[in-house]
Amino acid sequence: MKISTPTLLVDKNQVYRNLEKMVKKTKKNQVRFRPHFKTHQSAEIGEWFKEFGISSITVSSVRMAECFAAAGWNDITIAFPVNILEIEKINTLAKKIDLNLLVESEKVIQFLENELESKVKVWINIDVGYHRDGIKWDKLNEITKLASLIEDSNILVLKGILTHAGHSYKSRTKVEIVQVHIDTISKMETIQMHLAEKGFFNIEISVGDTPTASIVDEFSSVDEIRPGNFIFYDLKQVQIGSCSENEIAIRFACPIVAKYEDRNEVLIDGGAIHFSKDYIFDDNKRKIYGYITKEIDGKWESKIEDSYVISISQEHGTVKLNTKYFNEVNIGDVLLIIPVHACLATNLMGKLYLTTGQEIKAKCR
Amino acid sequence: MKISTPTLLVDKNQVYRNLEKMVKKTKKNQVRFRPHFKTHQSAEIGEWFKEFGISSITVSSVRMAECFAAAGWNDITIAFPVNILEIEKINTLAKKIDLNLLVESEKVIQFLENELESKVKVWINIDVGYHRDGIKWDKLNEITKLASLIEDSNILVLKGILTHAGHSYKSRTKVEIVQVHIDTISKMETIQMHLAEKGFFNIEISVGDTPTASIVDEFSSVDEIRPGNFIFYDLKQVQIGSCSENEIAIRFACPIVAKYEDRNEVLIDGGAIHFSKDYIFDDNKRKIYGYITKEIDGKWESKIEDSYVISISQEHGTVKLNTKYFNEVNIGDVLLIIPVHACLATNLMGKLYLTTGQEIKAKCR
Repeated sequence: MKISTPTLLVDKNQVYRNLEKMVKKTKKNQVRFRPHFKTHQSAEIGEWFKEFGISSITVSSVRMAECFAAAGWNDITIAFPVNILEIEKINTLAKKIDLNLLVESEKVIQFLENELESKVKVWINIDVGYHRDGIKWDKLNEITKLASLIEDSNILVLKGILTHAGHSYKSRTKVEIVQVHIDTISKMETIQMHLAEKGFFNIEISVGDTPTASIVDEFSSVDEIRPGNFIFYDLKQVQIGSCSENEIAIRFACPIVAKYEDRNEVLIDGGAIHFSKDYIFDDNKRKIYGYITKEIDGKWESKIEDSYVISISQEHGTVKLNTKYFNEVNIGDVLLIIPVHACLATNLMGKLYLTTGQEIKAKCR
Repeated sequence: MKISTPTLLVDKNQVYRNLEKMVKKTKKNQVRFRPHFKTHQSAEIGEWFKEFGISSITVSSVRMAECFAAAGWNDITIAFPVNILEIEKINTLAKKIDLNLLVESEKVIQFLENELESKVKVWINIDVGYHRDGIKWDKLNEITKLASLIEDSNILVLKGILTHAGHSYKSRTKVEIVQVHIDTISKMETIQMHLAEKGFFNIEISVGDTPTASIVDEFSSVDEIRPGNFIFYDLKQVQIGSCSENEIAIRFACPIVAKYEDRNEVLIDGGAIHFSKDYIFDDNKRKIYGYITKEIDGKWESKIEDSYVISISQEHGTVKLNTKYFNEVNIGDVLLIIPVHACLATNLMGKLYLTTGQEIKAKCR
């Protein structure tokens, strides 16, 4: 394909390999697989999931739920605490599909009880240590009170307890990831047992950030996992320990517009409006906005030593290259970049291209 | 207006004040005002500039030039080194409008000489210290060689030398900003004089990042300035010293979806896909993704003490509030946020709303 501006490429075969691996694991563990679609936001890529028999999904906004409902998905969890200002849209959606919502306060439960027009399933959103959203796992009395309120409702159906252990992203080894998972499950089981003692049975457990879903083999008491990023992976996930570099299914292709001989750097058409401003630190504490790679015989190679995106502004990217590769490339060549954060990059680009050149829309929101 | 999801608001009166101030300054100094439209990317806001008699603009990509050309702008500088892979689009544009391009290497000049189909004006892109793009200012022989190549061309018209002193963004006081400007002008004048000695006259000087354009009063030898961000301003510009907080013309409005009593924090619908991941450090070295403010009698107040966006993920924002304000707000209220980086936020949102509720499209790209 002819590339003239920053382009996000996706290797469909690698996506299928990532998907197959996760599907196998969920089947082996007999857990429901409810992948998070915020990573790709693509109705077309959603169809690839259907080939594996997947029928329930996770999204992060009402808008995204509307879009995937229109694309034929009938069982959707909005993994974001209910925004009560969106009640009209929620009511419209709940009439059409099997909708799962997250609640974490009496106020919102009472609001839904008053305003909802059709039955919805609700999950109590639990904070097991990330401290972003959810009710703290050890507030057992409060959690029980929420469960009672939901049980008393005619319109809310208590499905279970749900958490996003986002602190797994601080891990740097597989062992650390597994520790986060064990700790998460232990906390979720504590709640589940407490609720059972209080007469609430069939409380499901839903977990599933990409790091733990990628590394953990046994899901024991888990009923559902919801990873999203695993479909593409990225440099953050490699750094965390979730995957290897060759499992990353996307690359940026960016034209070289200038070469700077005195600093072994090239300027690319590609910046914050394409990649996002997310970065990782390398072992030398340098900020890395992407590593550089090559395509040889239609295959993406490993990252090139000492070659990385060193800084970005709105549309400019500055890339440091090792001397050998610097001498190989010229103005007008297209540089291949391994992205730092797949979800934000895909959100910014709004489309991807298969290596065959076919466009894949990724704006289901 | 009824707000239910993250919404970017713009105060049209403040935009006019920011615009008028800059227009007055350019008139007093008799410099051409060629504002950078990458900040707003809005054909509608472009019309506001026309009311001030502005007819020449700057953009950062060929796509943006195409869009603003379609919106009736006939004199456009693409302030990004020519990407030779976009020659077809450049040729189409150059037939329609008065196009200004940036060059910085022999290779690109020779390419344009061979491939361009209509006359274009070119500026030699100079690096005065930002070290992102441009030919280093002290490579006087190389710059002269580029000027000769351009002069020898039948299709390229040498307009002048241009720089973006992006290192002004490292300033933290007005004095530092002025120092960057003085240093920039001194380097640009050195080149101009050297070129004059070699027989190149009428070489214009184009400068104009927002910090220096906002603070400097005298532009002496400058022929053109190109600030963009000044139209909205943001927390980065306040920190640099370019403006005061009450000159910032935009705010985010984001619903509160949860309250956490034990940590005086609220969760908002609003994250990296709305604000971008840009941040500033406050005096205590805390990362700030936005300050919190209120609207009273239709007027945006100053930032509320000890209240700021403390962390963001893809769609979630965590906001720390002082105890008094924390006790005032509730789930379902809309929080007003002063953005860190206007350009990236506007790029992500793709639209703004006047405080009257009228939608302003901002996707001219």
